[in-house]
Amino acid sequence: MRAVTAVIDPVTPGQDSRTMKALVYSGPGQRAWQPAPRPVIREPGDAIVRITTSTICGTDLHILKGDVPSVTPGRILGHEGIGVIESVGAQVSAFKPGDRVLISCVSACGICDFCRKGMFSHCRTGGWILGNTIDGTQAEYVRTPHANTSLYHLPAEIDDETAVMLSDILPTALECGVLNGQVKPGDIVAIVGAGPIGLAALLTAQFFSPAAILMVDVDDNRLQVAKQFGATTLINSTDGTAVARIMALTEGAGVDVAIEAVGIPATFDICQSILAAGGHLANIGVHGKPVTLHLEKLWDRNIAITTRLVDTVVIPMLLKLVKSGQLQPAKLVTHRFALADIMKAYDTFGNAAAERALKVILTA
Amino acid sequence: MRAVTAVIDPVTPGQDSRTMKALVYSGPGQRAWQPAPRPVIREPGDAIVRITTSTICGTDLHILKGDVPSVTPGRILGHEGIGVIESVGAQVSAFKPGDRVLISCVSACGICDFCRKGMFSHCRTGGWILGNTIDGTQAEYVRTPHANTSLYHLPAEIDDETAVMLSDILPTALECGVLNGQVKPGDIVAIVGAGPIGLAALLTAQFFSPAAILMVDVDDNRLQVAKQFGATTLINSTDGTAVARIMALTEGAGVDVAIEAVGIPATFDICQSILAAGGHLANIGVHGKPVTLHLEKLWDRNIAITTRLVDTVVIPMLLKLVKSGQLQPAKLVTHRFALADIMKAYDTFGNAAAERALKVILTA
Amino acid sequence: MRAVTAVIDPVTPGQDSRTMKALVYSGPGQRAWQPAPRPVIREPGDAIVRITTSTICGTDLHILKGDVPSVTPGRILGHEGIGVIESVGAQVSAFKPGDRVLISCVSACGICDFCRKGMFSHCRTGGWILGNTIDGTQAEYVRTPHANTSLYHLPAEIDDETAVMLSDILPTALECGVLNGQVKPGDIVAIVGAGPIGLAALLTAQFFSPAAILMVDVDDNRLQVAKQFGATTLINSTDGTAVARIMALTEGAGVDVAIEAVGIPATFDICQSILAAGGHLANIGVHGKPVTLHLEKLWDRNIAITTRLVDTVVIPMLLKLVKSGQLQPAKLVTHRFALADIMKAYDTFGNAAAERALKVILTA
Amino acid sequence: MRAVTAVIDPVTPGQDSRTMKALVYSGPGQRAWQPAPRPVIREPGDAIVRITTSTICGTDLHILKGDVPSVTPGRILGHEGIGVIESVGAQVSAFKPGDRVLISCVSACGICDFCRKGMFSHCRTGGWILGNTIDGTQAEYVRTPHANTSLYHLPAEIDDETAVMLSDILPTALECGVLNGQVKPGDIVAIVGAGPIGLAALLTAQFFSPAAILMVDVDDNRLQVAKQFGATTLINSTDGTAVARIMALTEGAGVDVAIEAVGIPATFDICQSILAAGGHLANIGVHGKPVTLHLEKLWDRNIAITTRLVDTVVIPMLLKLVKSGQLQPAKLVTHRFALADIMKAYDTFGNAAAERALKVILTA
Repeated sequence: MRAVTAVIDPVTPGQDSRTMKALVYSGPGQRAWQPAPRPVIREPGDAIVRITTSTICGTDLHILKGDVPSVTPGRILGHEGIGVIESVGAQVSAFKPGDRVLISCVSACGICDFCRKGMFSHCRTGGWILGNTIDGTQAEYVRTPHANTSLYHLPAEIDDETAVMLSDILPTALECGVLNGQVKPGDIVAIVGAGPIGLAALLTAQFFSPAAILMVDVDDNRLQVAKQFGATTLINSTDGTAVARIMALTEGAGVDVAIEAVGIPATFDICQSILAAGGHLANIGVHGKPVTLHLEKLWDRNIAITTRLVDTVVIPMLLKLVKSGQLQPAKLVTHRFALADIMKAYDTFGNAAAERALKVILTA
Repeated sequence: MRAVTAVIDPVTPGQDSRTMKALVYSGPGQRAWQPAPRPVIREPGDAIVRITTSTICGTDLHILKGDVPSVTPGRILGHEGIGVIESVGAQVSAFKPGDRVLISCVSACGICDFCRKGMFSHCRTGGWILGNTIDGTQAEYVRTPHANTSLYHLPAEIDDETAVMLSDILPTALECGVLNGQVKPGDIVAIVGAGPIGLAALLTAQFFSPAAILMVDVDDNRLQVAKQFGATTLINSTDGTAVARIMALTEGAGVDVAIEAVGIPATFDICQSILAAGGHLANIGVHGKPVTLHLEKLWDRNIAITTRLVDTVVIPMLLKLVKSGQLQPAKLVTHRFALADIMKAYDTFGNAAAERALKVILTA
Repeated sequence: MRAVTAVIDPVTPGQDSRTMKALVYSGPGQRAWQPAPRPVIREPGDAIVRITTSTICGTDLHILKGDVPSVTPGRILGHEGIGVIESVGAQVSAFKPGDRVLISCVSACGICDFCRKGMFSHCRTGGWILGNTIDGTQAEYVRTPHANTSLYHLPAEIDDETAVMLSDILPTALECGVLNGQVKPGDIVAIVGAGPIGLAALLTAQFFSPAAILMVDVDDNRLQVAKQFGATTLINSTDGTAVARIMALTEGAGVDVAIEAVGIPATFDICQSILAAGGHLANIGVHGKPVTLHLEKLWDRNIAITTRLVDTVVIPMLLKLVKSGQLQPAKLVTHRFALADIMKAYDTFGNAAAERALKVILTA
Repeated sequence: MRAVTAVIDPVTPGQDSRTMKALVYSGPGQRAWQPAPRPVIREPGDAIVRITTSTICGTDLHILKGDVPSVTPGRILGHEGIGVIESVGAQVSAFKPGDRVLISCVSACGICDFCRKGMFSHCRTGGWILGNTIDGTQAEYVRTPHANTSLYHLPAEIDDETAVMLSDILPTALECGVLNGQVKPGDIVAIVGAGPIGLAALLTAQFFSPAAILMVDVDDNRLQVAKQFGATTLINSTDGTAVARIMALTEGAGVDVAIEAVGIPATFDICQSILAAGGHLANIGVHGKPVTLHLEKLWDRNIAITTRLVDTVVIPMLLKLVKSGQLQPAKLVTHRFALADIMKAYDTFGNAAAERALKVILTA
């Protein structure tokens, strides 16, 4: 895990005696909407944001399974959110109290070598810290470090529900999947995994006018959603013939871009097996295990495989596309809850297949 | 293997009753310098070239072990060569008898979809066919298909020994290693494998002024050669501490570019273990087995892994650099033989470590 | 003009005594649909194509004004066409009589240094020669040099009218305007000139999802067409306030990409005056005069200005996009004539504003 | 000029009653080394730097001619410098008093839209302000706004004289000339202008191994320096035959990259006249007048013309190359003075041809 010691300062005593409610993780399987101290400015680059809208990410479910060791008991979860600035530290020049903001899932100092390269994901004092190594956005208030370069002004015409999709899921799909995959007009693209992130890749891949988008999943409901979102071909991979069918559909050539949107060896394997000579395999999935890479078949195939933790550098681009009407992120929203009902929202999101849930909106 | 049926036409009877001598493969472990029919024009795009200089590639040793099933007994080996045009087919407009030419290891029709993209390696009727699915260059004469786009005019000031390094080894090192790795000024580059191809990567990486080139091998002799060729740090990986030492040298950051120049799981593993966030792993090695890719560590590291069969599209660039004196490919030559002594040359090249052999020159 | 002597061989006597009808240029202002010898194979790379559909380009009008000195009296005009192969020379391996083909406006040998770089426009024995230095496609038959790399197979599902838009106008708009301009999602693009080429740029710019496309012209009819084709803002520049209005619309920032689609100093001047810092000016227009470049204002603006003669390397991409339904090139067609009525078609096309003509189709 | 009102705050009273000496501009032709108030922190992002080394730029001479209207009487000149941090404002987290730093000629907030794109030159509250709209570095002390993202830590092994060449001249040459020109291995590069900036382009172009670098100037002394720095061909353009000679040298093809390093119509004209089809013209020169762009010759030549105010984003890369020994910037230094003798230094630098001056070093 990247060092975040400069940001975490547990010894600063709470200057704010007021409490709030927040979704607190207390170890594997344990979460509760419970009182917590209201956050306070600790570093001069901090802002305190009153959350108006948040959501739940698949990563939050991983945390609850105990799969993310950097998250320790007592942590407030959540790394996506929209809100209003309450107060700012002495270094915050780009925002003032009352500003309506989008919170990036990735905090960026804007100064370190990685930030200067646009690799905010690897910021030496930031990266993915919200709801991970510091308290997050599934709360009434959140402290956001490096506010100048981690928050975004929101124009009035973009509603909260739309905007919160730009905290993580859409930048992740676009950067890790579509841009890394170098989707171009006329391409054949396969997206393996029709969950929220795969569907977000489907929406953003269309910015570049591929000729075909093949959607691969084991869940027919999700595939039907994919069809409505613009997929040209649906492949249910349950029976193990997905690779064969894709190769047949492409007359043996394979696909120009394969986007891995699940994070397990089986789906990575589909991706590497359907890649055309010269193709790109863009990994989005969070992998917990190694995979077998068939270099004995791929060494002479002129392919590229990429990985990426989202940098959220495309948030300004996405805001423009929302304003112009080219992107309707709220399509991904299937369920809406009051923030205070977040426990129910987790139940629904955690049972996504049966509930036909994609993204759930939490409104404060 | 890519279909090459349009090129192979075994039924055409020899119109030339003369014989020549050639290095013929007769099954695993079996090679001989023996009489063979002189090649004749079979397709209108063919040229017949009288070989003046050839060399032996590591791939030829793989073939002799029986590891390359597309090579069948009776095949004349060799895919590198310099020579003089003897005759040309009706479609050959760019060359005429008497022209001195460089033979690319990859044959390209120049017409198919892959050739139009510059992916000559995957030409639908070409690619690596010489010394593989058709007879090759370790002979007094060779038939070269698609001559217009597979041969290169050689200026008088470039000698044979220099030029033959541009048939395969230097384009491979530059395209698959250096260009795919995106080496840029100031980078830290690690090259794993100091054999001929790794050393060629070392020579060509310097076109882009990296700050450091770390050379990794198990053979101290080869590492010393690397030092003379411009490596800034030598790492003997015999004791299994190469990864730890490289991470220490880079203060835990890892390298910007790791070039895999061996082709076995152990060296690939070094490469994936030393990659900086945002780094590139450029594979050159010919792999016979799958590797384990540690996506559980790499999924969030913003890396790219590339593979490539050489396209030889950089031959014109390399010719310019040889003419201007920026590149001295003959540095790679350690031994010289008459072509008629190719059996001895194979003995030497096959015992490279003891013989301290890099590239061996065969002169007709 | 690029040397084309290798292709022109006036001494070859006509082996075909039959005549055909063709649109012959006889000097400024003089054109006639008249008998001409049927073309014959002169070089082994040639094909003879029976034209089924052709069209007229703005360049043809320039020629008729006498503005293109490389076109000499007696020349058959036309560089766009669809047809059926009648016969092929000895070097033509990719096509055979009876094949239905798209004729690129640019002939490419596929062998020379420029062709190897994908710069077919500057092919040393090709480039724009059809209807220029050799006879063209506004005829019942045409000889196409370098057929292997200058013709394209047409799938049955693409009709002639659609396909002929891919000979020149759509590749030109996409390559010179959209790709050179590096249009990307969220961009503000201005296209100066709403004639056929500007409208083609408008259609192809949408492959990359710009947030806004501002269309600038002096003709309200054309601007209305632009609106139907996807322009987001229409600017009639007649009153000289176009620059001021565009700067106001962009809050003083200017546009990300300005595409010059006319070819006169006034329109180039609009483009250079509306460029944002970091912007791209992509010139499509054929210029007959120098322009004044305001480097005293632009030297510190981090801009790029590009020019290009179309290479038609995107024809395969465009064919995919037509097949997938992303592109409907026939939108550009406003008038249809029999090829034998080409004299009337020229009248209509030459009076485009009054006739509201964009592209006219000529069907044999 | 970009708005810099947020940075300039003339009403803040001096909290520091001490004075220093500085080079003050008092109108065209008027400069003096005179007492001035020591600068103080005005904005929380500021640092005060004690200058240890500075230098004079050609732009300073332009200012003294009265050619830069944004520079008003009373201004301390200078935008290059090395020094030691005296004090920092509340927002400065990356530097502390005592740190030895390199001052970029361009100030960057790191927050605005341009900074996020790496276009520091167009920072909305920065850009080139030092020695322009705020006091500069030709003084004993300087206030540097946006210190976090405008200063660079200097390792002990890089001396001041070397480092100060990285404030402006080397980043300008590399970014505006070499990177914008896309110099690549084997290219033929022409640099028009062998003054300090042209010579810096010559040094940095070699990072990419061009086959030939043609240096064009009217001063034989400077051309001889260019030869020592690696130029392969020297062209004295005094007699007006430079274009003809370069075209002859390139066998009529022209150069791949032309770098304009003067800033007048005549030198721009040489550049546009020698460009190969597909070539790049990278402008570095500061132009005071428009130029005539021959689009009637260039519209079909597939060229790119770029302009750029330096962003100094390559400073980290250059620091690596200095440390590794690939770059010896001190080669550009011809004269050395005490900072207190800056009046003499200006005399020398202002008479560069006769004095054979390139860069002059000022040491405090």
